[in-house]
Amino acid sequence: MSGSRPRARQLSAQRDEAKRIKDPIHDFIVVEPYALDLLDQPAMQRLRYVRQTGTAHLVYPGANHTRFEHSLGCHHLAHVAADALDLSADRTRLLGATALLHDLGHGPFSHTSELVTESRSGRSHEQRSVDILHEQFTEPLEAHGVDPDEVEQLILGEHKLKALVSGPLDVDRIDYLLRDGHYTGVATSVDALRLMATVAMHEDRIVTSRDGLGAAESLLVNRFAMHSAVYYHHTCRAGELLLERAMLELVDSGELSVDELARMDDYQLVSLLRKHEGEAGRMARRVLDRELPKVAFEVPYRALDERWVEAITGDLEELLTLEEQVADHADVPRRHVQVDAPSPPGLPETEAQIVGPGGETEPLSQASTLVRSLADAYRDHWHFRVYAPRESHESVEEAVPKLVRLETPLDEF
Amino acid sequence: MSGSRPRARQLSAQRDEAKRIKDPIHDFIVVEPYALDLLDQPAMQRLRYVRQTGTAHLVYPGANHTRFEHSLGCHHLAHVAADALDLSADRTRLLGATALLHDLGHGPFSHTSELVTESRSGRSHEQRSVDILHEQFTEPLEAHGVDPDEVEQLILGEHKLKALVSGPLDVDRIDYLLRDGHYTGVATSVDALRLMATVAMHEDRIVTSRDGLGAAESLLVNRFAMHSAVYYHHTCRAGELLLERAMLELVDSGELSVDELARMDDYQLVSLLRKHEGEAGRMARRVLDRELPKVAFEVPYRALDERWVEAITGDLEELLTLEEQVADHADVPRRHVQVDAPSPPGLPETEAQIVGPGGETEPLSQASTLVRSLADAYRDHWHFRVYAPRESHESVEEAVPKLVRLETPLDEF
Amino acid sequence: MSGSRPRARQLSAQRDEAKRIKDPIHDFIVVEPYALDLLDQPAMQRLRYVRQTGTAHLVYPGANHTRFEHSLGCHHLAHVAADALDLSADRTRLLGATALLHDLGHGPFSHTSELVTESRSGRSHEQRSVDILHEQFTEPLEAHGVDPDEVEQLILGEHKLKALVSGPLDVDRIDYLLRDGHYTGVATSVDALRLMATVAMHEDRIVTSRDGLGAAESLLVNRFAMHSAVYYHHTCRAGELLLERAMLELVDSGELSVDELARMDDYQLVSLLRKHEGEAGRMARRVLDRELPKVAFEVPYRALDERWVEAITGDLEELLTLEEQVADHADVPRRHVQVDAPSPPGLPETEAQIVGPGGETEPLSQASTLVRSLADAYRDHWHFRVYAPRESHESVEEAVPKLVRLETPLDEF
Amino acid sequence: MSGSRPRARQLSAQRDEAKRIKDPIHDFIVVEPYALDLLDQPAMQRLRYVRQTGTAHLVYPGANHTRFEHSLGCHHLAHVAADALDLSADRTRLLGATALLHDLGHGPFSHTSELVTESRSGRSHEQRSVDILHEQFTEPLEAHGVDPDEVEQLILGEHKLKALVSGPLDVDRIDYLLRDGHYTGVATSVDALRLMATVAMHEDRIVTSRDGLGAAESLLVNRFAMHSAVYYHHTCRAGELLLERAMLELVDSGELSVDELARMDDYQLVSLLRKHEGEAGRMARRVLDRELPKVAFEVPYRALDERWVEAITGDLEELLTLEEQVADHADVPRRHVQVDAPSPPGLPETEAQIVGPGGETEPLSQASTLVRSLADAYRDHWHFRVYAPRESHESVEEAVPKLVRLETPLDEF
Repeated sequence: MSGSRPRARQLSAQRDEAKRIKDPIHDFIVVEPYALDLLDQPAMQRLRYVRQTGTAHLVYPGANHTRFEHSLGCHHLAHVAADALDLSADRTRLLGATALLHDLGHGPFSHTSELVTESRSGRSHEQRSVDILHEQFTEPLEAHGVDPDEVEQLILGEHKLKALVSGPLDVDRIDYLLRDGHYTGVATSVDALRLMATVAMHEDRIVTSRDGLGAAESLLVNRFAMHSAVYYHHTCRAGELLLERAMLELVDSGELSVDELARMDDYQLVSLLRKHEGEAGRMARRVLDRELPKVAFEVPYRALDERWVEAITGDLEELLTLEEQVADHADVPRRHVQVDAPSPPGLPETEAQIVGPGGETEPLSQASTLVRSLADAYRDHWHFRVYAPRESHESVEEAVPKLVRLETPLDEF
Repeated sequence: MSGSRPRARQLSAQRDEAKRIKDPIHDFIVVEPYALDLLDQPAMQRLRYVRQTGTAHLVYPGANHTRFEHSLGCHHLAHVAADALDLSADRTRLLGATALLHDLGHGPFSHTSELVTESRSGRSHEQRSVDILHEQFTEPLEAHGVDPDEVEQLILGEHKLKALVSGPLDVDRIDYLLRDGHYTGVATSVDALRLMATVAMHEDRIVTSRDGLGAAESLLVNRFAMHSAVYYHHTCRAGELLLERAMLELVDSGELSVDELARMDDYQLVSLLRKHEGEAGRMARRVLDRELPKVAFEVPYRALDERWVEAITGDLEELLTLEEQVADHADVPRRHVQVDAPSPPGLPETEAQIVGPGGETEPLSQASTLVRSLADAYRDHWHFRVYAPRESHESVEEAVPKLVRLETPLDEF
Repeated sequence: MSGSRPRARQLSAQRDEAKRIKDPIHDFIVVEPYALDLLDQPAMQRLRYVRQTGTAHLVYPGANHTRFEHSLGCHHLAHVAADALDLSADRTRLLGATALLHDLGHGPFSHTSELVTESRSGRSHEQRSVDILHEQFTEPLEAHGVDPDEVEQLILGEHKLKALVSGPLDVDRIDYLLRDGHYTGVATSVDALRLMATVAMHEDRIVTSRDGLGAAESLLVNRFAMHSAVYYHHTCRAGELLLERAMLELVDSGELSVDELARMDDYQLVSLLRKHEGEAGRMARRVLDRELPKVAFEVPYRALDERWVEAITGDLEELLTLEEQVADHADVPRRHVQVDAPSPPGLPETEAQIVGPGGETEPLSQASTLVRSLADAYRDHWHFRVYAPRESHESVEEAVPKLVRLETPLDEF
Repeated sequence: MSGSRPRARQLSAQRDEAKRIKDPIHDFIVVEPYALDLLDQPAMQRLRYVRQTGTAHLVYPGANHTRFEHSLGCHHLAHVAADALDLSADRTRLLGATALLHDLGHGPFSHTSELVTESRSGRSHEQRSVDILHEQFTEPLEAHGVDPDEVEQLILGEHKLKALVSGPLDVDRIDYLLRDGHYTGVATSVDALRLMATVAMHEDRIVTSRDGLGAAESLLVNRFAMHSAVYYHHTCRAGELLLERAMLELVDSGELSVDELARMDDYQLVSLLRKHEGEAGRMARRVLDRELPKVAFEVPYRALDERWVEAITGDLEELLTLEEQVADHADVPRRHVQVDAPSPPGLPETEAQIVGPGGETEPLSQASTLVRSLADAYRDHWHFRVYAPRESHESVEEAVPKLVRLETPLDEF
């Protein structure tokens, strides 16, 4: 479909000046010639047409921002961090390039397509970023003295500088929280400059000094708040579920290979689905016309048997099986039922190292009661949900309790 | 193509509560049941996929905002204005509905498709808004006691309240300046609440009290600043020109009717063009991969013969003829040449009435030296440009001066 | 000193229009005639010259904001809340008046003078607000149909609407967090409009609906973050301690009555101290010239014996005795030692009632793991500190451990 | 009075690390050791207690910001500009120091005291800055290799880098517009980073490249807007006039020398005036209690005879004589009349040099129609006013027209 695109564009030999790009989050972002040559590649330009936050625009009409601007924002923060750590020009370019390229592998609507592409291909979006890196970016990277293999290691988290790119307090998180806040209108408070100013190299690892403890706590609490306000919002999730199932049908029916799907942008996927005559098309059109299913059943995570939850969350086959059972029991059409049981977010922040004035380090989770409480706090806000159209609500609501393993009798909720 | 969409969705009979929608510009926007029923229609949902500022995202990566959120913002300001004027519930709903619906008729990429649809169909986007209004919105409007014909009059500027919706200091301008500033990152300063608080009814017309003079000046100067920073930015224009010419080819070749084009959203147009094998597809792919032509020739408006300029600006046939002549003279392929000669913006602000403490009114242009100078100021920033790929620059640069009517010898610029 | 001021100013009989006052936090604040008559009183105007955040400007140069603008902000939010609760015009004015007047009783530099005035007079700043209320505001309140006794009950927390004025999620906290963030530059994220929109009357009490849970958590976490970043910042505290001790000397030496002190504004206090020839003057001049003592000894709360801490925190006599002992042991001048052991903030938020969709209520601390963890989290950031000039650091550092009751051996910190 | 303060504080020999100071406008401001040593001097700390915008807080309650934070902001922007110009470390420190010190000479309430101190001593606030520079800052400047004489030249505008510190597009203006906007809440839009990024050295002068033209226009239009919204607001001016006349009386009666006045901070002046038993005290207390005179007579500048205006504006003796005449004619007490005829702001922006891509320069006023219109636009908003208490309004209103030289018959206004 876009078979002719991955060819690398000629490097503009005469390029020798940085450009400044205006960004509503970081004001001017300085883009040096090495980064301009990366930006020029079609695989980077594609990210202009991949939404950062899936279907969040169905709830927050301003949330139309993209992986492209997010990647630029990460690039900017990587340079700020490199300055704070006083890295060499070489290491700075390595970090800057990685920050720019780390999201190349996202499929259409970002995380919305992730479960489908991962479950059907066994490849994560990080691995896909690495694939595209080697296909299209070797030449421009090497032309500027950046080793593509080191970029790969950083993207896959196998590099000692990884904490800046994919660690618990990394530039990725800082940028997306600020950016998602700006576009949704949800108030966020991330002190990016303090976070960047309090990183340090300590015994060959990146750590945060104790001066940055408050800012680190704030970052994580903000991420937590954004999860319930945006990322797990029941209506956002309804749209994502429909789109996800539509993509799944395209792949499982053989109409589209998983690799084709993963390389599409949002425009390509939507246009394919809009004209699709099967169930996939019907589901997508409900997203486009915002005729979304409503929550028919909802319990908080803590109401469910923990082991049952662990077995089911994030496992597409288990969820599909459960949906079938619910539809059966409720005697409603199969397509009327969508089960939502996303994994609670991982909490890699427990690994972040805080270094005290005497040089002693401790994990953030030990240094901060607040951070320690976050794992439980997520469970407060995390819900197991079953969606259905209004007309099927009653029977679905009745069927589900018979099929899920509850920890606590339902009437306590 | 989307033939089944214009059917009105069933009104939710039980709807009786307002919703609050979060907006990054106005914080919470209260949406009353009457407006919710309008929002539900597919023609409104389509605006979620129509960019507010054409191809401005090619220069300002954050500029991915849409006509949908802009329409909501106008709706909000219409209610604020109605409160300030102490209008009846009836008149308030009329204004609120019009503000929400006034942009229904925009084609893909908003103003980017306007010259094509207008020149090929003779219908403006306002007239198209009215068409869609009567097709899809009669029922929900009448259900809430709003007369569709009055909405039509307001949209077409034939109603005594028009000044709030399409007048010189209207809610449309206030919202788009604030919104375009928020998403591009370009600093803007519009005191929306003061503007809304200083409108008044005066002898059956909407006027602005002298207290609002400073805020009105600021609004217009900001609009002026956004024109050169964003709307007329040479790179934004390059993208728009390519897309415009691609659409023109689709229509003129008969592949697409002008009405089909006008009802598309951005996703549909892009997906059609991306796969298109002719020149239209080639041009579109250059936009998507951001391989844009550069300015080969540029002079400010004041360097050109005024009458020649008037004849050519905004007249698609004249521009196309000129392009052919330039290509001929320069001996480069026809597709290498794009002439950009947009009309300078109209200045309806000269009509805005300012009312003094004694009740005497005068037009804003008389009350304000600054506003009076804007017509000339626009000419400072307004440029006649010819775009071409790098390899054709030299010959195009040589050819153009022989074909345009200059007021001043070129070497003075 | 300002003996002639507490006379009520004549009410402007002809006043019949609201005014709009521009505020950087809430944009325009509408001030109705009843509130204008309150604003006119000298006791309200005095608050223009009382800093909101003590000596925080010594660390955050922008923190020069005052109790006056904060009171206006609370007034605004009270009206927003009253609208959300659909209160009568009567109840609205009661709330609005109370929000405006609730801080009248603050002494110079707000909380900086509080320990002195409370310990020397036994009257809290709330009680002082009530005193001034009855002296100066009876007439304008009654003229607008507001009962001063009800205002008193609200200020003292003895009224069923108290939750909006002095409760855990009250307008006071919302305003000061937003305002302190705006002026210090510390990022804060308080969704005021959501908080105000999710309050409800439930069985005669003010509660927050479950929809507002996330916003309530955010508010409290932000307050927590501001405590360590601003309110307990070691340098802010150093300035406050010096000023506090200077005021104490003025009162204890009989140069100033505690009531005179409490009614001063910052300007009067500073000018008195600047010219003062004794120790009080010396301490104040160190604040004005920013020659502040540094932390000589610091341990987190959790390092100390809990009962010892409870005995000492917030008890001026105990702290003064300890200072003497330290000075003795360290063999340094008495004035070289300041002990800082503020009480950890109370957590009235445990009382806030959250109401679920079925009408069942539970305290916020039960509904939220995050909130439950805050009491412990405060202890992470709360420090017991002893300040001294550089030349006395070494001996003070040695002396203190012998005089405080430690829970854990020092070398673990 | 504060005779012992101007002694330079000992330099902290061990200082070798930069500090970061949080600022709500520029986020973190990095303060290098050289600047820390300057900040430590009492004359810099004094600026914490000098309001930036006179009595603007009487209209904009948030406008409590100070010359101290403004000086820090200028310091920050000077470093940004030095980076953009790629200046040496030496030149950078020179600029940075000057930006920090340039406002030392402001008297209490900044510009409010300026007419009094200048008319009574013949020394401008810039000259006073230089005096204090030589008294207190020679040592710390020289310790860091900065020549105090060069700082003097820069402050007085006699240095080739002056355009950055006191020129038409200087760091001073950029900072105060952003800052005054942040604290008053009046929307401003100054693109500081673009302005700083488009300065260049051209033939030994500082110029702005044509890319910065839009940003430069915006800066000047914003300054214009702030003049009518804040600096010339009739109520702000009422407060300033009363304070100015109070200071004048203190000086003219010999109670205070003009040099003592000029070195006071706001706190010292207010405390002196508050207790003053004469007319000066009465006027000051009206400011503190916000019992301000109202405008009894007002005409725009263009209604007056131009030569008469030139003779009277900014000339204190002429204004006082006119006040006496008005009081006489109106038969009201002399103290009831205040005439306000401030000079329209100078427009040094006509001098700013814009450099085109070919290296040709032209003054900004020639490059921009908008800027050219500003001189006239100021006259639209500029008013000649006479203030009086309500009871004297009628007779003052009648008296004034007989004593001013009108260009146009009054009834046309």
